[in-house]
Amino acid sequence: MRFESDNAAGVHPQVMNAIAQAANAPGTYDGDGFSARLDAAFADLFEREVTVLWVATGTAANALALSALCPAYGGIVCHEEAHIREDECGAAGFFTGGAVLLPLPGPGAKLMAADVRAMLAGRDVDQHTLPARCLSITNATEYGLVYKPAELAALYEVCREFGLRFHVDGARFANAVAALGCTPADLSWRAGVDILSFGFSKNGALMAEALVVFDPALVEELRYRRKRAGHLPAKGRMIAAQLLAMLEDDLWLANAGTANGAARVLGEAAQARLLHPVEANELFLTLSAGEAQALRAQGFAFFDWDTEAGGGIYRLVTGWHQRAEDVEPMARALAALPSAGA
Amino acid sequence: MRFESDNAAGVHPQVMNAIAQAANAPGTYDGDGFSARLDAAFADLFEREVTVLWVATGTAANALALSALCPAYGGIVCHEEAHIREDECGAAGFFTGGAVLLPLPGPGAKLMAADVRAMLAGRDVDQHTLPARCLSITNATEYGLVYKPAELAALYEVCREFGLRFHVDGARFANAVAALGCTPADLSWRAGVDILSFGFSKNGALMAEALVVFDPALVEELRYRRKRAGHLPAKGRMIAAQLLAMLEDDLWLANAGTANGAARVLGEAAQARLLHPVEANELFLTLSAGEAQALRAQGFAFFDWDTEAGGGIYRLVTGWHQRAEDVEPMARALAALPSAGA
Amino acid sequence: MRFESDNAAGVHPQVMNAIAQAANAPGTYDGDGFSARLDAAFADLFEREVTVLWVATGTAANALALSALCPAYGGIVCHEEAHIREDECGAAGFFTGGAVLLPLPGPGAKLMAADVRAMLAGRDVDQHTLPARCLSITNATEYGLVYKPAELAALYEVCREFGLRFHVDGARFANAVAALGCTPADLSWRAGVDILSFGFSKNGALMAEALVVFDPALVEELRYRRKRAGHLPAKGRMIAAQLLAMLEDDLWLANAGTANGAARVLGEAAQARLLHPVEANELFLTLSAGEAQALRAQGFAFFDWDTEAGGGIYRLVTGWHQRAEDVEPMARALAALPSAGA
Amino acid sequence: MRFESDNAAGVHPQVMNAIAQAANAPGTYDGDGFSARLDAAFADLFEREVTVLWVATGTAANALALSALCPAYGGIVCHEEAHIREDECGAAGFFTGGAVLLPLPGPGAKLMAADVRAMLAGRDVDQHTLPARCLSITNATEYGLVYKPAELAALYEVCREFGLRFHVDGARFANAVAALGCTPADLSWRAGVDILSFGFSKNGALMAEALVVFDPALVEELRYRRKRAGHLPAKGRMIAAQLLAMLEDDLWLANAGTANGAARVLGEAAQARLLHPVEANELFLTLSAGEAQALRAQGFAFFDWDTEAGGGIYRLVTGWHQRAEDVEPMARALAALPSAGA
Repeated sequence: MRFESDNAAGVHPQVMNAIAQAANAPGTYDGDGFSARLDAAFADLFEREVTVLWVATGTAANALALSALCPAYGGIVCHEEAHIREDECGAAGFFTGGAVLLPLPGPGAKLMAADVRAMLAGRDVDQHTLPARCLSITNATEYGLVYKPAELAALYEVCREFGLRFHVDGARFANAVAALGCTPADLSWRAGVDILSFGFSKNGALMAEALVVFDPALVEELRYRRKRAGHLPAKGRMIAAQLLAMLEDDLWLANAGTANGAARVLGEAAQARLLHPVEANELFLTLSAGEAQALRAQGFAFFDWDTEAGGGIYRLVTGWHQRAEDVEPMARALAALPSAGA
Repeated sequence: MRFESDNAAGVHPQVMNAIAQAANAPGTYDGDGFSARLDAAFADLFEREVTVLWVATGTAANALALSALCPAYGGIVCHEEAHIREDECGAAGFFTGGAVLLPLPGPGAKLMAADVRAMLAGRDVDQHTLPARCLSITNATEYGLVYKPAELAALYEVCREFGLRFHVDGARFANAVAALGCTPADLSWRAGVDILSFGFSKNGALMAEALVVFDPALVEELRYRRKRAGHLPAKGRMIAAQLLAMLEDDLWLANAGTANGAARVLGEAAQARLLHPVEANELFLTLSAGEAQALRAQGFAFFDWDTEAGGGIYRLVTGWHQRAEDVEPMARALAALPSAGA
Repeated sequence: MRFESDNAAGVHPQVMNAIAQAANAPGTYDGDGFSARLDAAFADLFEREVTVLWVATGTAANALALSALCPAYGGIVCHEEAHIREDECGAAGFFTGGAVLLPLPGPGAKLMAADVRAMLAGRDVDQHTLPARCLSITNATEYGLVYKPAELAALYEVCREFGLRFHVDGARFANAVAALGCTPADLSWRAGVDILSFGFSKNGALMAEALVVFDPALVEELRYRRKRAGHLPAKGRMIAAQLLAMLEDDLWLANAGTANGAARVLGEAAQARLLHPVEANELFLTLSAGEAQALRAQGFAFFDWDTEAGGGIYRLVTGWHQRAEDVEPMARALAALPSAGA
Repeated sequence: MRFESDNAAGVHPQVMNAIAQAANAPGTYDGDGFSARLDAAFADLFEREVTVLWVATGTAANALALSALCPAYGGIVCHEEAHIREDECGAAGFFTGGAVLLPLPGPGAKLMAADVRAMLAGRDVDQHTLPARCLSITNATEYGLVYKPAELAALYEVCREFGLRFHVDGARFANAVAALGCTPADLSWRAGVDILSFGFSKNGALMAEALVVFDPALVEELRYRRKRAGHLPAKGRMIAAQLLAMLEDDLWLANAGTANGAARVLGEAAQARLLHPVEANELFLTLSAGEAQALRAQGFAFFDWDTEAGGGIYRLVTGWHQRAEDVEPMARALAALPSAGA
């Protein structure tokens, strides 16, 4: 029973089916029937006109978004543990032509509006210092917390005060929507978001992310940027078809709900060991080395997050394929741990 | 009957099958069983140790290769109609950080060693002028011609004289190998090539290209460059699986041979109208506007290459799925054209 | 008597004097009294509000201007012999983050509006091809020809049709103004120019160029770009002081007029050997190798432009310090050449 | 009496004299007699062969050095208050093509070898994370502390362990040498430094920094990089002449010694208020707002470093032109402050 990463989860059968159907359809690049239907499908979902550019990876989605939102000489405010800072090998700097990340701490990888405001107010605004031009947050965060619409609104208020554009890394956006029970619009454009990296690869797709662009002025530029980054495959229809399959009958939402539900079950069982509340599909647990080893010996796989010889913090991520009943054995094993942690 | 582009060709059933099998296999990024087998599989094919990095697109393969072979302040000699110059939206400049393409003419998009030497000998070598540092050719070329091993050797000799690295854009490398009946090694490292972009997407894969790296010193760098370009999908196994399927029993070679064979049939039928000899899987025909229209009215689809009101040059590309007998109707239609062209 | 380059000319005494006076004045970067007076001084000269950023070199001025006028994914139309293409070691690509020069031929390094229009009309406008976004011309050109206001207007008309910004490399702008007897405004903003690189280093300054920005929306960005390119010296007042000295009593115009006058004298003497009309301060002569050698033996220094064993084209440039009477010996030597050229 | 910045200090008369003499000398770019003598002059100073490239600003020197020492996909370890991080508007990211600074804390802006080692040992070494490739320190530091040869050796040991190149930002290198009484070699190549940005602009030059390159393999590349960054002025002799003047009879060392001496006098007077020991030519004092105001009322100018309404930290920098006796009034005023600080 694997909880290392939703990245490792398999492909949903409906997605595989959609790929197979697109395999021999006509059209090259984004000039195919599947791609042509995307804007409308996402417009339905987001309750307004949008333009959607498919890409194959979350790193590409984030870096392209940032390159359209921040000039080469600008700064991008983000959490110090943001994926764009820790896990994308400098993609933001590469795609923007040298923009610099301006990291801030915050609980559970969440940025607080007051902290962002204080940092921006404290920065020099002269030519010796990069001007902050973009805010990028991750929803759900790297620790599985979710930003609520009001929190986004508070951040957007800061963006407006200081002239920043607003990007959301939504590698687990579906999990955030499912957790909050609000609409995709509530967590994006209604809260002032300019571009959303809407992830599907962790949620049942094979290799598909949607760059949802709410500012029409950025669309043309993004098409050129996508191509010159090598992210316009000849058989783009294969990515489009995945997205359409994920949107059909809200498969994306059902999948995320399943993953969140499994995490909730585990979270309840491991209450005393949780580092953060379980809001989406990730758990961070404090375990001793012995406990971790014992769990693994029972066949449960999970990730060393921040550990040393004596134990530490371990991460569990649930996937779209894990129903509550599927994770019961793990829940029982966690519940059996002594409540006094490592 | 479609001849617009081998890009538009479908996915070979064995490739689709491989993808389906990889869908739920374990492993993330390139840490999976499929990716682990790639180097050995390509080493067999190339008769020496190589490192292979999969990527999803030919543009990514080319731009990554060039970024490892040419510094930001360098020049890349290429044909004036090279794909990297005409069709990749400046990817080479983006990935290298500003390197400049140094275009040369040549028959059938082929570079002649003497021309390259003359150009390099005539360039200033002082700090006011970008130093040429890389040669990039396309084999088969954008006009479907193939470089023979001796031609590559002559180009490599120029590279050595002037201190250039050597890249081959092999979007249709399979077609070149099939056309010449030589080995992949003969058209790559034995001829001095440093990195080969070995294309599979046009030849039966869904979305898979192999960056075949013959200089081990460049491998580590390329891994970082691939990631920061957003070209390391979480389910990288899906690309690896395609490549393995294409290599199995030399499916790649059989597919290319089929496409070449179909092109040969068409080429023989259209002899009088050919702009270039048919060596791989592309034909460039001179047609009047009326002739083009008449062919299209019969259901044959092909591409306006360089046309005006009165007609001009049209491109036909055959694919891995078109056997000689499949293209007979088109061959007959071409043969029925008056031999005296537009 | 030296005619190799106006680059090599010395520093005008009034400029040296201004530097000495600024040496111990207060202020750092551009926060000094000299810099503070620049906008007003240039506004007087250009008959409208402008912002002027000083930089030390023409390459910096051009590359900064282009980085503000062309996105990283854009193309810059220029003459195939433009300084930005031939002599700046790829600075445009570096500063823009990968923009590509789109070269065109034209007589005397001059771009014809019709040629630019035809090129732009013939370019694909899809995501596979870099979109042209900027036109950059050199006035006076690399061959010493000048664009007249009407020619600039015709080019600007093309810029408007195709959505291009307009840059002028004015390394010898002073010579163009002096040649035409029009105003600086006529050759810049009145003709639609967005940014002018106004050169002073060849015209009597020690090391000073003015980036004259007519579009206020670009100013803030350019300040950041200048700093991050390392072009904001602590003692910026030393550059500002040079520019003010050059503007005082129109020293720039007098200097350019002197250089042009000397070139005219030489041009009249060498009429039969001229490759281009002499409009500013450059002459391109056809000489046999023996003639060139004989002239040099008399103490006249000049530049091999495009020569082979048998002779060819030689360049002479006059400087601000060469009055008509100063170049009389050279004029006599040129007049003594047989009129039937090499 | 001004202590805001040594940046604001004037130009030494010998330097002005050298400029005047170079003004009308022949030669363009770096092809002049002054530039030709630089390598030998610096070789004498550094007791080994070196190549020296002049540039006009410290930002340019640092960013060029880093671009030669760190690939686009690399990380540069530096102090969190380093000039390259805080005051150069992202130049390092621009010149390298996206390399990222990896900041560390440390007392007085000084990096401790143990901290660097711990940080490097704790970094992931996989393709998701930028590999650290360069260490850049400032000597004297931003707080006026100096690294001793043994401290440099310890840092270099870490560089060797982890495969990092070693850069020194020596905007105040002269002050460090003067403070320690060791040789320039001891603080550079003998301690493993690859490139030194040797600053002269704060120490009596008009606008001149020396990029001292100890690794010959980097020289050619740096020449191209300098040009494409717009840092090769036509009258480069003017920069070369300044450097030669500064080296003659060790003017650079005498100037730095003077500035250090003045700082020592002030430091002794303000002992109780010092935030850091005074090792070079900078002082950081704790003052109440009232004290600061009172000092300024007496005509002493200095810089708010980190202050709020109630006072805080103030910076004083002494310059090459301030002898001990010149700063006596300020020393007396500081000595008159109550010893119990703000």
